[in-house]
Amino acid sequence: MSERGLFGGVFARGAVVIDDAAWLRALLAVEAGLARAVERAGLAPPGSGAAVTAVAVPQNFDIAELGELAARTGNPVPALVRQLSELVGEDGKTAVHRGATSQDIIDTAVMLLADQVTGAVTAELREASQSAARLARIHRDTPMIGRTLLQQAVPVTFGLVAAGWLNGLDEAWEGLITARSRMAVQFGGAAGTLAALGDSGPEVARLLAEELGLAAPELPWHTQRLRILDVAFALARATAVAGKIARDVTLLAQTEVGEVSEADPGGSSAMPHKRNPATAVAILGSTRQVPGLLATITASAESELQRAAGAWHAEWQPLSQLFTLASSVATQIRTLLEGLVVNDTRMAANLEATKDATLAEQAATLLGGGPRARDQVGEAVASDVPLRDVLGIELDPARYLGAAGAFTDAALEAHEGGNRHG
Amino acid sequence: MSERGLFGGVFARGAVVIDDAAWLRALLAVEAGLARAVERAGLAPPGSGAAVTAVAVPQNFDIAELGELAARTGNPVPALVRQLSELVGEDGKTAVHRGATSQDIIDTAVMLLADQVTGAVTAELREASQSAARLARIHRDTPMIGRTLLQQAVPVTFGLVAAGWLNGLDEAWEGLITARSRMAVQFGGAAGTLAALGDSGPEVARLLAEELGLAAPELPWHTQRLRILDVAFALARATAVAGKIARDVTLLAQTEVGEVSEADPGGSSAMPHKRNPATAVAILGSTRQVPGLLATITASAESELQRAAGAWHAEWQPLSQLFTLASSVATQIRTLLEGLVVNDTRMAANLEATKDATLAEQAATLLGGGPRARDQVGEAVASDVPLRDVLGIELDPARYLGAAGAFTDAALEAHEGGNRHG
Amino acid sequence: MSERGLFGGVFARGAVVIDDAAWLRALLAVEAGLARAVERAGLAPPGSGAAVTAVAVPQNFDIAELGELAARTGNPVPALVRQLSELVGEDGKTAVHRGATSQDIIDTAVMLLADQVTGAVTAELREASQSAARLARIHRDTPMIGRTLLQQAVPVTFGLVAAGWLNGLDEAWEGLITARSRMAVQFGGAAGTLAALGDSGPEVARLLAEELGLAAPELPWHTQRLRILDVAFALARATAVAGKIARDVTLLAQTEVGEVSEADPGGSSAMPHKRNPATAVAILGSTRQVPGLLATITASAESELQRAAGAWHAEWQPLSQLFTLASSVATQIRTLLEGLVVNDTRMAANLEATKDATLAEQAATLLGGGPRARDQVGEAVASDVPLRDVLGIELDPARYLGAAGAFTDAALEAHEGGNRHG
Amino acid sequence: MSERGLFGGVFARGAVVIDDAAWLRALLAVEAGLARAVERAGLAPPGSGAAVTAVAVPQNFDIAELGELAARTGNPVPALVRQLSELVGEDGKTAVHRGATSQDIIDTAVMLLADQVTGAVTAELREASQSAARLARIHRDTPMIGRTLLQQAVPVTFGLVAAGWLNGLDEAWEGLITARSRMAVQFGGAAGTLAALGDSGPEVARLLAEELGLAAPELPWHTQRLRILDVAFALARATAVAGKIARDVTLLAQTEVGEVSEADPGGSSAMPHKRNPATAVAILGSTRQVPGLLATITASAESELQRAAGAWHAEWQPLSQLFTLASSVATQIRTLLEGLVVNDTRMAANLEATKDATLAEQAATLLGGGPRARDQVGEAVASDVPLRDVLGIELDPARYLGAAGAFTDAALEAHEGGNRHG
Repeated sequence: MSERGLFGGVFARGAVVIDDAAWLRALLAVEAGLARAVERAGLAPPGSGAAVTAVAVPQNFDIAELGELAARTGNPVPALVRQLSELVGEDGKTAVHRGATSQDIIDTAVMLLADQVTGAVTAELREASQSAARLARIHRDTPMIGRTLLQQAVPVTFGLVAAGWLNGLDEAWEGLITARSRMAVQFGGAAGTLAALGDSGPEVARLLAEELGLAAPELPWHTQRLRILDVAFALARATAVAGKIARDVTLLAQTEVGEVSEADPGGSSAMPHKRNPATAVAILGSTRQVPGLLATITASAESELQRAAGAWHAEWQPLSQLFTLASSVATQIRTLLEGLVVNDTRMAANLEATKDATLAEQAATLLGGGPRARDQVGEAVASDVPLRDVLGIELDPARYLGAAGAFTDAALEAHEGGNRHG
Repeated sequence: MSERGLFGGVFARGAVVIDDAAWLRALLAVEAGLARAVERAGLAPPGSGAAVTAVAVPQNFDIAELGELAARTGNPVPALVRQLSELVGEDGKTAVHRGATSQDIIDTAVMLLADQVTGAVTAELREASQSAARLARIHRDTPMIGRTLLQQAVPVTFGLVAAGWLNGLDEAWEGLITARSRMAVQFGGAAGTLAALGDSGPEVARLLAEELGLAAPELPWHTQRLRILDVAFALARATAVAGKIARDVTLLAQTEVGEVSEADPGGSSAMPHKRNPATAVAILGSTRQVPGLLATITASAESELQRAAGAWHAEWQPLSQLFTLASSVATQIRTLLEGLVVNDTRMAANLEATKDATLAEQAATLLGGGPRARDQVGEAVASDVPLRDVLGIELDPARYLGAAGAFTDAALEAHEGGNRHG
Repeated sequence: MSERGLFGGVFARGAVVIDDAAWLRALLAVEAGLARAVERAGLAPPGSGAAVTAVAVPQNFDIAELGELAARTGNPVPALVRQLSELVGEDGKTAVHRGATSQDIIDTAVMLLADQVTGAVTAELREASQSAARLARIHRDTPMIGRTLLQQAVPVTFGLVAAGWLNGLDEAWEGLITARSRMAVQFGGAAGTLAALGDSGPEVARLLAEELGLAAPELPWHTQRLRILDVAFALARATAVAGKIARDVTLLAQTEVGEVSEADPGGSSAMPHKRNPATAVAILGSTRQVPGLLATITASAESELQRAAGAWHAEWQPLSQLFTLASSVATQIRTLLEGLVVNDTRMAANLEATKDATLAEQAATLLGGGPRARDQVGEAVASDVPLRDVLGIELDPARYLGAAGAFTDAALEAHEGGNRHG
Repeated sequence: MSERGLFGGVFARGAVVIDDAAWLRALLAVEAGLARAVERAGLAPPGSGAAVTAVAVPQNFDIAELGELAARTGNPVPALVRQLSELVGEDGKTAVHRGATSQDIIDTAVMLLADQVTGAVTAELREASQSAARLARIHRDTPMIGRTLLQQAVPVTFGLVAAGWLNGLDEAWEGLITARSRMAVQFGGAAGTLAALGDSGPEVARLLAEELGLAAPELPWHTQRLRILDVAFALARATAVAGKIARDVTLLAQTEVGEVSEADPGGSSAMPHKRNPATAVAILGSTRQVPGLLATITASAESELQRAAGAWHAEWQPLSQLFTLASSVATQIRTLLEGLVVNDTRMAANLEATKDATLAEQAATLLGGGPRARDQVGEAVASDVPLRDVLGIELDPARYLGAAGAFTDAALEAHEGGNRHG
């Protein structure tokens, strides 16, 4: 885990970290896959694919040197290709980077990285949703106060809260599964025609896709960036769901609320009483970076003609950051939900905090509803005496939960049913 | 069209403009649909649904007054509901806004507006893609120079360029069709339990969905905002594709390039020679607003507990703007492609602009490929004499187009085939 | 106030609303000012400036018609100029739009609108800071619990909280004053040379600045957009400060915290106990739109050559929205602070909520500090018995406020002193 | 330069790269400065400041380990402090991190990093503006065609273009100088009162500012983030100016335009004729990441109470990225302008590309101006015969440059004069 860096404990806690080493591995995997595809298409001697694959290993390359050389060409691929050609024997050489342009290698590498990240994120989301489902099931009938605009409103259940989280996690998971099916090789050569390969271009593209386990697109997508947007949007959906859950946890964990806490809250040596929701805070610190990254990635879709002059380059860092953050957030939300401690005593106590004013709606309904009943209740609330006493009616949050149970069941059923996670 | 405003000719040229009147119509449609659903569920007297529907018409409401009254409650629904109750007779009253909270009305209204907008955008995209397909077909074999980083690179065809546009338009269309299937009513009452409706909540929700032609969700989504994100992302995909096409058109229409022009370019009385790509510029002026709007909408998904204190409110204006811009852009891209004038004489001339230096790759291939051939060609290019003459070989852009035709055919086939637009 | 629209009570509560009417007034003011400048420079007959000014009034123009005509030229100015020429007599005609291009009129109009908005915002901020200063003074010594990561930490004073708000408001005010000094006319003609005016260009530019009360820049800034960025950034600073205050208010106003409330909280007919912080929520609903708008405006600075093909157009709507929101937020933050109700009883009660665990730092200090003392206190906190009792020491939040008073005084002094608001 | 990474040649070419090592150095500088300040305030034994300073060196710390430990506390400072305490002798220990909270160290470290970056950027901008001034001077009277909406419009001079760039660079430089004066220590302790230091808080804060060469603020700014916004905005202004210049260069360097080229354009082994504007493209690849980063940083100003739960954390990575990119862009724009090759032959040729249609405005003026003259010219343009011949008038771009020379001189004068760079 040493490569995660100084802030790695906060922003890079997932299975996947898209750092320079990950990029290098992916770039080499594409070059090696291409050499094998070229050989299979009969454009390079037998064995050349294996020869290239054998030398296309990270330890043969110096990241700093490649980075330095990237200055002149605007990306690190030309230097990497030169070194690869030098490393491989004379026979292999004809297979190296054959027919390709730098963008082919980088874009396809992004798809390999996207595949890794979405794989990791879907796995974590599935576990997170299991935890959310467990919470929904256990607390199906645990009443707590609902809060709108951060004010106590009417009763809900913690089961319903967890069911909402579950539903979000499930929908985020589904979006990622769909996005994964769209990950495809980019292979077009200098300007998208693969002219250097004569008539063999589409065949090599198909074999390359096979080698890398990616889809083969109908045509090169070097300046049609929807595949990039699709993975970014799918990951943004996942971080959006995690951000909502983390925000709820920070609010419910407030000292004055105390309804949930993390399994292992962060402490402070100077303030031993503190129980910081450190994981939820780290999630929010991550998810709040996503809208800005998404703006950059979306703007980059405006690619000029056959290769963008800047917009393409502007994608690389935001994608790396989004990928790393998304994997980290997925791991953190799984951890957070796994260990979430629910304090139903505090939930019950908070339900009584305004005496029974939060049952005003129930009271009005019991009094027959309509404006007259509401006025009556309004006056009672203003009197600051419990409504029960003023109005002489029985008020009970547990009997004013409407469809909370039914909604919770529906979310659980969808989660368990054939249409989800099946 | 009078309501489109001072900049309407630039930013509001679509079939749908989400202004205050559109919002009011949508809010009233939700209230009326709810009243009918409540009646059907047996919670209000027969005829009350019709009675509410009859008075829930825009001319009965004063937008300015509703806006003014919105200050106290933070949204215009409470004032609208009060007026609606006053307008309807005593019987209808019990059906008005029954069980609902303001957010139910606004969120469901957003879905109705999204339905309108995505309907309009998909219709325009379908026509735009027909035009792109026509261009791809006609110009399947029209050579032009490909440009990477805005420098002449190697030959492509205009058919391939149009095929790339077509592919983008088709994929944007597909994304919108998927997004449309996710548009669902939001109905949860004060805090998501529909407690005021006793056990009838889910039934009323289902009937409401039926009345409005929207999907019925498993549970209320007031603070799980993926449905909002989904429509925003689907529209952003469409504007991204349009922005790429418009960028290409502005570049190809440059005075010095002159390969395409708009059917009806903008003029200037002071500069009668100008042929401004006014539609492409208006598209870019619109699409470039989208990444920022998307950032706001994505950030708003971090909703607090049972109703967001600000994040929800922050969605309304960006959604209105995105909806209006997307409809406008869709109409403009359809217009742009419909009338695009292609100048193949200029394309041919530009292919010769660097003499035949842009055929260096072809020359190297003809000379047997490999470093030696590339060096030979490199020297020839440096000599500033046509490669043909120096190297004594025949060079022809029309014979260096690789898979351009095949890729164009593939895009056309996908467009026409069962898997698209079927 | 009728033009503020359906959501005007939430997003358009300021003195300035930048709607189409405001734009039209500004565009006409620039055209009229230009005609007068042209006359003063001797380029048009005496009286022509006055003649143009007389007809350059909104009631002579139909916004919808201008908007419609904007489609062909990409902006509404050409149509406006044509109508203006028709309205003015033969003599005045030579003064109309003389030497100008559409961008000159629109950019200068933006500066006039910016001048209005920043004028309104600075006035409101000054009043808001007076209220913050009053709160800081009154509550200089009112202890409350400080909260970090939403957890109770150590005591602070409400005076210090208000002093932080005050400092932010004062710094936002100062930034706006600086930005106001940079507002300058844009006047460059077709491509920035003012060639149509022969040698008189700079003189007319100077006179135009004089007529409109704006600065005269060294050279046209049509594609150097720092003046646009400067006003946007200055307004974003102001909304950032307001957003922080509003966030604090929503948190301190939570039912479970109850330390502040708005003068006139929003209610709910169904939930008569609710005291929604409606103004703070509206502020947050506004301020959260700003980062996205800022992203668009910043990206638009990448202007092509002598007039941007899209980037310029993309500024108009985000600037209108930012201007309207900033004015609204300024008014709302002034209102919010003016009437803020401070509940020092709840503050005192919340200080005791964890018994005296939040005084752990004080206890450790009293016990001599260092790791040993901290361990001792840590154990005591874990025992769940008040520290006072376990440790046998006197603990008092009022005596653990450090420099809270001094910092409050410093902020007040800076506010009142010569270096601020002087 | 080895730490710049795989894309360092594109995005990290400046003097300053804000990587983990830079962060660690800055965090340690703050801790060391604090220890010396604490000693000077008499709160720690003589020599303790020096003792802490001696061990607060990067080689004593393992970034990966600190990163790992950051997970529990949400930031790397607590682990760093613990290790620092262990490294220093018993006496020094009392000076370590005295009175401070993690946020004090991180925020003040950000200010040190900002100081480095803005120092590097201002130095580069000054040199870049000297180059722009040189270009403006040399080409004061070199005519070229002005282009609006990417269409040829009317003549300008390259001197005027360079003067616009110069003006932007000078204004960006000035903004940074102002921002540098606002860089201040953040020192507030657990919740902003510095209570752990008794009455000595403000004194230690003042001494800390002195030790670090930063300003001492009136009060802690842990949740009033304008100082962060100010440095971000000032850097965004600089990158916005660089982005405009780079965009112009990519457009003027197009094969079909050819009016400028980079000193050392990027090549392509497969396409030896290519002269890619690699530096301009790298600049655009960097500047286009800025609007999104700015959105995140601006949104983060909404800090909760005494320490933000996520918003603060969300600043660290975007600030690091913005700092690194801004330094890189400043170096690149200096390089780009230093070596820019201007091709006045192509400028002259392009002026004639539309024959003399771009002199239509001049022709109309020579014919007496007014609608009649414009109609006459319009017809002539439509005839596709040079205006000179049809109208029998002498047309010369060099005599239709209006105030181009005067504006160029004004920008140069401002640059050289006392009010700039003095």
